[in-house]
Amino acid sequence: MPRVLQEMETPALLLDEARMERNIERMRRQVERLGVAFRPHVKTNKCIEVARRMMTGPEGPITVSTLLEADYFAGHGVRDILYAVCIAPNKMDHVLALQARGVRMSIILDSVEAARLVAQRLAHAPAGIGVLIEIDADGHRSGVKPESPELLDIARTLEAGGVAVRGVMTHAGSSYDCRSAQALRAMAEQERRAVVLAAGRLRAAGMACPVVSVGATPTGLFAEHLEGVTELRAGVYVFFDLVMAGIGVCDVDDIALSVLATVIGHQREKGWTLLDAGWMAMSRDRGTSSQPLDQGYGLVCDLDGRPLQDYILVGANQEHGIMARRPGAGADTLQLRVGQQVRILPNHACSTAAQYGEYQVVRGGSQVRATWKRFSGW
Amino acid sequence: MPRVLQEMETPALLLDEARMERNIERMRRQVERLGVAFRPHVKTNKCIEVARRMMTGPEGPITVSTLLEADYFAGHGVRDILYAVCIAPNKMDHVLALQARGVRMSIILDSVEAARLVAQRLAHAPAGIGVLIEIDADGHRSGVKPESPELLDIARTLEAGGVAVRGVMTHAGSSYDCRSAQALRAMAEQERRAVVLAAGRLRAAGMACPVVSVGATPTGLFAEHLEGVTELRAGVYVFFDLVMAGIGVCDVDDIALSVLATVIGHQREKGWTLLDAGWMAMSRDRGTSSQPLDQGYGLVCDLDGRPLQDYILVGANQEHGIMARRPGAGADTLQLRVGQQVRILPNHACSTAAQYGEYQVVRGGSQVRATWKRFSGW
Repeated sequence: MPRVLQEMETPALLLDEARMERNIERMRRQVERLGVAFRPHVKTNKCIEVARRMMTGPEGPITVSTLLEADYFAGHGVRDILYAVCIAPNKMDHVLALQARGVRMSIILDSVEAARLVAQRLAHAPAGIGVLIEIDADGHRSGVKPESPELLDIARTLEAGGVAVRGVMTHAGSSYDCRSAQALRAMAEQERRAVVLAAGRLRAAGMACPVVSVGATPTGLFAEHLEGVTELRAGVYVFFDLVMAGIGVCDVDDIALSVLATVIGHQREKGWTLLDAGWMAMSRDRGTSSQPLDQGYGLVCDLDGRPLQDYILVGANQEHGIMARRPGAGADTLQLRVGQQVRILPNHACSTAAQYGEYQVVRGGSQVRATWKRFSGW
Repeated sequence: MPRVLQEMETPALLLDEARMERNIERMRRQVERLGVAFRPHVKTNKCIEVARRMMTGPEGPITVSTLLEADYFAGHGVRDILYAVCIAPNKMDHVLALQARGVRMSIILDSVEAARLVAQRLAHAPAGIGVLIEIDADGHRSGVKPESPELLDIARTLEAGGVAVRGVMTHAGSSYDCRSAQALRAMAEQERRAVVLAAGRLRAAGMACPVVSVGATPTGLFAEHLEGVTELRAGVYVFFDLVMAGIGVCDVDDIALSVLATVIGHQREKGWTLLDAGWMAMSRDRGTSSQPLDQGYGLVCDLDGRPLQDYILVGANQEHGIMARRPGAGADTLQLRVGQQVRILPNHACSTAAQYGEYQVVRGGSQVRATWKRFSGW
């Protein structure tokens, strides 16, 4: 296996370990300051080597977005897993199998209908699976409104079926649309208030509701305090990406993930340099297209990870990336040669990483220090 | 393993074998009528069971978009492979290793610079690797213009280095932007003329140029004749998708690929049904967003694959799909229950299939008849 970037076949997914460690340390300090438990989300990395550096202990806790993640991390010794997508009945056998392996599983739901199905299913199952109610803090996705009558209906349906409500959780996905530190702080406070209100209503109705969970990378990093909250969840912070940089959550040089690509040709009259990294290598994610600075399919850097002046992927085919100056930034003055390599920062770490089976770990420089396996799918 | 859809964990990738066979037969008849060789592109399917049904013989020929595809299909007995992305120098060892395994490899390039690098590399290698020159038929991507002086410069650089030009190839990617049968026929003719012109110029300069290759699913199916062309390449036709339906290349009920998903909740005041298939399950591809009928992240069908009236994924998070009536189509009248399953037709078969490690094969109905492995990555 080649140990320097220059000898690698491309495209390949690079992970800058020094940047990752800095990102992890930033979140660690923030969690310490906030005084809450930390349950890192592993959906972005799907890799035990990365998750071990994020987790507060070898047995977790962690948050997952798929039960395949739960299987994998359970196989690596993690014993406390929150599956943070509302449960579908066809996944209950799988959850019970994980619990039977010795994992403390938590699931979420947001309707009386689901509460009834889950209570029925757990009636004859061993105790111990935690059920959290998802709260809608910002109208972004799923969850019940914290002030809604349905919140108590769901809780009572569970308790009537013999299932204690373990708590409430929310995810302020709208924080990805924020454009200032002030807006991020306000969104963090909105997220906190929503679950604290919901927990208060459940407790007033006589339920213990021990877990009060919030999280998203932007709100986690910008929260001023998390009074009443017991745990924080966040995942993308470990790598960051151009979307996070675009909303001001990180700087471009905090982005730990990049795609190594090679120049395969030119269309000089158009100012195009063709790379062997297209949308399959970058993913189809165009998350910066709605931001003030559209980064195309990714921001092009030199082999050391320093951005080339205003060069982005302006277009992409399946295995072709079209690199050019940003619209309005002038002509191509770089004139890269066929065979030269570049590194491309992704719009969205979760979707780009999902296209690869491994990370090539670097620490600045072009030496590959390790290869860490990752997985995708369900 | 569950053998009926109702018992499957979701999301899962379904392949309707009957539709696939109909699509394969349609292309087979067209190729027969056109009187050219057929070199199916396997980048969409990445699965030997699918490719075997497309290939004209057990040893190929095929077209690939990555050398991992070449490795895999070589391992399954394919012996004639065109790698149809301009070659990067860092891939030459890999190509030579494939050739050493007994595969007749062809590579492509579109510059004097690359021709020089390849000729140098092949000077001390065993003979037999075919080099084709990529022709730019439509300004879409890579390739040299068929009338350009550079075409002859590239050919002469190769020949001076002892490498005979095996031929010319092009891909009319712009055909994806066509909106009528007339436009598709015209684009097919434009594609044909470009390579025939290029081949004629090379022959006039004394080179044999035995291979004249064109291809894209839209042009392949709409070409009226392929005079002067020796082979056709196409891949996405095997499954089709909403983008192909949107440009009139197929009907919606020709689409052989769908994602099985489960209802996990609602936001009733918004008319939203939440599904457990988000952009990770569908891919981030929004190829229909520039078409007259925007299908969101996919068109929702019942469990038999019949479209539900104007229900699409209007939004998606990583593992959440937001199903709703198409904008302007009225309120949600279906009121699906939590746990109910749907099938979602994808915008783009290549990008959606890439998110999965296997196809669940059905033939209408809900019985899973086989599971076929596929792969992704490089």
